[in-house]
Amino acid sequence: MLQTRTMSLPPIHPVILCGGSGTRLWPRSRAAKPKPFLPLIGEKTLFEAAVARTSSEYGFASPLVVTGAAHVEHVEAQLGKTDATIVVEPAARNTAAAIALAALRLDPAAIMLVCPSDHHIADGEAFRAAVRNAAALAAEGYLVSFGIEAKSPETGFGYLERGESLAHGGFRVVRFIEKPVRAKAEEFVAAGTYAWNGGIFAFRVGTFLDELAAHRPAILDSARAADAAGSQQGRQFHPSAAAFDSFTPESVDYAVMENTRQAAMVPVDMGWSDIGSWDALHLALDRDAAGNTVQGEAELVGCRNVLVTSHGPRVSVIGLEDVVIVIDGDEVLVTTHEGSQLVGKLHGAANQ
Amino acid sequence: MLQTRTMSLPPIHPVILCGGSGTRLWPRSRAAKPKPFLPLIGEKTLFEAAVARTSSEYGFASPLVVTGAAHVEHVEAQLGKTDATIVVEPAARNTAAAIALAALRLDPAAIMLVCPSDHHIADGEAFRAAVRNAAALAAEGYLVSFGIEAKSPETGFGYLERGESLAHGGFRVVRFIEKPVRAKAEEFVAAGTYAWNGGIFAFRVGTFLDELAAHRPAILDSARAADAAGSQQGRQFHPSAAAFDSFTPESVDYAVMENTRQAAMVPVDMGWSDIGSWDALHLALDRDAAGNTVQGEAELVGCRNVLVTSHGPRVSVIGLEDVVIVIDGDEVLVTTHEGSQLVGKLHGAANQ
Repeated sequence: MLQTRTMSLPPIHPVILCGGSGTRLWPRSRAAKPKPFLPLIGEKTLFEAAVARTSSEYGFASPLVVTGAAHVEHVEAQLGKTDATIVVEPAARNTAAAIALAALRLDPAAIMLVCPSDHHIADGEAFRAAVRNAAALAAEGYLVSFGIEAKSPETGFGYLERGESLAHGGFRVVRFIEKPVRAKAEEFVAAGTYAWNGGIFAFRVGTFLDELAAHRPAILDSARAADAAGSQQGRQFHPSAAAFDSFTPESVDYAVMENTRQAAMVPVDMGWSDIGSWDALHLALDRDAAGNTVQGEAELVGCRNVLVTSHGPRVSVIGLEDVVIVIDGDEVLVTTHEGSQLVGKLHGAANQ
Repeated sequence: MLQTRTMSLPPIHPVILCGGSGTRLWPRSRAAKPKPFLPLIGEKTLFEAAVARTSSEYGFASPLVVTGAAHVEHVEAQLGKTDATIVVEPAARNTAAAIALAALRLDPAAIMLVCPSDHHIADGEAFRAAVRNAAALAAEGYLVSFGIEAKSPETGFGYLERGESLAHGGFRVVRFIEKPVRAKAEEFVAAGTYAWNGGIFAFRVGTFLDELAAHRPAILDSARAADAAGSQQGRQFHPSAAAFDSFTPESVDYAVMENTRQAAMVPVDMGWSDIGSWDALHLALDRDAAGNTVQGEAELVGCRNVLVTSHGPRVSVIGLEDVVIVIDGDEVLVTTHEGSQLVGKLHGAANQ
């Protein structure tokens, strides 16, 4: 449960962001049905897991899902009977605007917990423990990032440098660092005072809107106009497209977090993965003693650290190591773990 | 043309053996349509190439094809209008018996040129030059093997050790060696007096039958009885099944060549491959500068020595080296070159 013994928190609304173009886990993930909506790990899709992790069972208020028109159908189907609001973005305009559209639907005194829908979190309890701390800090006026324990010098993530310690196990953020070069990333991991920026945030709604007004008024103005002219259709809210283009799309990190003086972070170690490549997905999946994982029908002979995932044909593999094999309809992908970073640039993935 | 300047040879009948279970190049090669009947290299199938290489255009007499009932349909279709006899084996009983059935259909004075139908020969002129020499030796009463220049210490082939030199560029065979261990194979290649036994033979028909009578009378008796009770149907000759089982199936090497005192060999270097594995097939195919070969639609990124062959789905490959990828209907095979030796033992290949 989210309430602490010593204080009562405002309601915490999950704000689940569903964007993504479906290129990095191509050909399983496609533009028409990208990563959040696929059961990549276990039986739930990543989106379903994000909803379940922040359900009313754990004391969360009703969620808002922000998505584009292309994916509303998947969101509706996978939300099932969850009491939720679906904010249908008139256009994909990056996270600052998406979060603003959600904030305008909420009580300024509430807490919004911004969660990507395409990440994997193995330890839901550790996640919710961090939510308690982050929400407590947010209630005090901080804009709080989740600082995910940096276990390896990844160059594909942003990093947070932590400073002065705060209440609730939190820290001020000294600096946001965009994807670093390898040597920098190694320094960060060695220093122990840096964490990965996983794109999970807790804000008091009013604080977020105030900071957006201070640092990116054009985004807030556009979002307000789109919200004011929007229409409700069942549990879907459609902000108006007409008013939603007079700003430069920016990430919430760039637009707000790097500019505010109230940036904080809570450290968390929760078995997190952004599932940003086939390699990363394989690391998050169960493996046998040889490090192999099979989804579908396959025979592996003399293989190590091989992931085979097939919807259909049988796959026979001999003698491979550190390789991912994906069969999906009319596409076959075979890549080394290392090469899986390049999947999004393949013709098939880029020209969907 | 086959005639030499100094002598006239008896007619040379190609005897093309079509057996094989279709496991080593699975899943492209299947029990129902094994290796000889597939266009693995270029547009002709291996069988069509074997027929074309020994056609009347080059002075050969009409061919005999020895095959089983399961493959007669493929043989008929791929022979087209070739003037040929198809000997339909009542059962697959190894090469000594198959060759005997063919020999009994021919004039004892003729030369039979026994050719497997599942090998690749890049240099048809070199092949026919060797045929001239082999046929000349056969006309003199030798049982002649083609001794294929041993370019590497293969452990999957038998070897011939050559002795005293004969006319027509030939040699006596001192010894037949079954598949050797690696160290032995390396000795053979270093010595320079050993050649691969490619299963290509030239015999005077009468000589072969005499030697079979001397060393394996049971095989000859069975073949004679089956032949005598056989029936002609169009260009197909069907030896009788009833008489064709009272002998132990043996290869012609084991039954005759290793026992005769008239064994000879002609050396030949003709770009030969038994296409005995996907690895071997890749070596026989054209490659690009990176050593890659693509049949079908594929995108290769950062690959070396990769063969992709797909009937259907597009294949995207990143970062692999020395790997073969085969897509065929409901089966996908991904194997290292080295691992391709094990393909025949896969469940899919073994349980067709």
